[in-house]
Amino acid sequence: MKLLSYERADGTWAVGAQAADGVYHVADGSLLDFIRSGNTPQLGDKVAGAPRTRLGLRPPKLFCIGRNYADHASELGNTMPSKPLVFAKYPTCVIEDGDLIRWRADITQQVDWEVELVVVIGKDARDVREDAAYDVVFGYTVANDISARDLQNSEGQWTRAKGMDTFCPLGPVIVTRDAIADPHALDLETWVNGQRMQHANTRLMHFKVPFLIAYLSQTFTLEAGDVILTGTPAGVGSGMKPPRFLADGDEVRVSVQGIGTLTNRCAVQR
Amino acid sequence: MKLLSYERADGTWAVGAQAADGVYHVADGSLLDFIRSGNTPQLGDKVAGAPRTRLGLRPPKLFCIGRNYADHASELGNTMPSKPLVFAKYPTCVIEDGDLIRWRADITQQVDWEVELVVVIGKDARDVREDAAYDVVFGYTVANDISARDLQNSEGQWTRAKGMDTFCPLGPVIVTRDAIADPHALDLETWVNGQRMQHANTRLMHFKVPFLIAYLSQTFTLEAGDVILTGTPAGVGSGMKPPRFLADGDEVRVSVQGIGTLTNRCAVQR
Repeated sequence: MKLLSYERADGTWAVGAQAADGVYHVADGSLLDFIRSGNTPQLGDKVAGAPRTRLGLRPPKLFCIGRNYADHASELGNTMPSKPLVFAKYPTCVIEDGDLIRWRADITQQVDWEVELVVVIGKDARDVREDAAYDVVFGYTVANDISARDLQNSEGQWTRAKGMDTFCPLGPVIVTRDAIADPHALDLETWVNGQRMQHANTRLMHFKVPFLIAYLSQTFTLEAGDVILTGTPAGVGSGMKPPRFLADGDEVRVSVQGIGTLTNRCAVQR
Repeated sequence: MKLLSYERADGTWAVGAQAADGVYHVADGSLLDFIRSGNTPQLGDKVAGAPRTRLGLRPPKLFCIGRNYADHASELGNTMPSKPLVFAKYPTCVIEDGDLIRWRADITQQVDWEVELVVVIGKDARDVREDAAYDVVFGYTVANDISARDLQNSEGQWTRAKGMDTFCPLGPVIVTRDAIADPHALDLETWVNGQRMQHANTRLMHFKVPFLIAYLSQTFTLEAGDVILTGTPAGVGSGMKPPRFLADGDEVRVSVQGIGTLTNRCAVQR
């Protein structure tokens, strides 16, 4: 099932499911509250017309994994880490499909794309065993882990480079766990202004989803609605010769097979 | 006014104010919701007896500033940054006065203390001007920015070293902005098992509170209830010769003048 939020005639939002013939009602309230409820989503009535939709999820925490594809580590001149490289993005950096990616030209001039498969956590958990890790997975979605390379390279900590407002397009839906037999067999793609920049498959992921869940849960309480960005493959702009960064007006599109596509334009403030 | 959460006879929690003669009711609901309301706290009825109290605040975001006291940067062999060094802790690392600081001996063996003045944000804001920065301050509290130095030194990103569960004792109260004339004139102290380890004053802070607010709000939306940990002065364990790290059973106490003291014991899991 492909879950999202949809707008009702009265302007409030509810949880729905995207089907081939339209949107079906799943539950009142927010997507985060639905995930927290632990309920299994069931299709309700079909929603009349074509309602506005969005993901509508503000994750309590965003766990991100760096250098998790060998070809991407290599293109930026890095070796593969011996354990997952964990960093944080703030919830305020999440935007929707269609929203603008914004930055100030006097703060960064090297803004880059990164398509990533995202794991959505379904229940609070600590010290999860690797062989039970899928039990805490609610589903999967897509992120564009937007990265200011100049800040990333100069500031040591990646908090500003990766975590600033609008730097995490997320969605457009959450595919429930049951609908993805193997999260390590999905094509990943990025296009910028229609040109394909990244094209790989999640089978190339180094630390796999169950290992990441077990590893993170050794030190962090995972909570319902938290997300894990599992890393990006080769093909980012800073790895090209010469480097290619995002510019005002650029359209960046990231896609994960079986989940969906995020399309966002860039707006630079001068 | 010193705000906190207190437990009522029916087991629910409300917002109260700590006074010399006891706790006064301020508002129903959570401290976070009260901050979000934008209301000015007013003393209500005195609460009968001696209710259980705690800070009871889960900040949406924790912004942390590294190397913001020259003597601390120096003791760890670092130079002062030319702009604030920003890193994140996760909300799940927050614990209360009296709670245990916990870690696994196979994950870290170099756990250290850091007393810090904390700014509590009072309203959502972006692009705050430095000369208007105090308008977005709700008040001040105290944090112990617990840090696993071995992970901090070996992992590059400080997300695990600084952000793991229990690594942010916070509280015991929020002193409202009006009650602290100058946040840059407060003594900071840390004791471990009764021995004083840190003793400095917030006047030694390099990037001051208004500058930090303006700087952070250039890239991040500040939200009501967010906190800014403003950095620690000299006297951390890893700066001692030989280094002194926290051990199982140690009692660590951090204090900021005019706000209060956090006392937490350490529990190592083997």
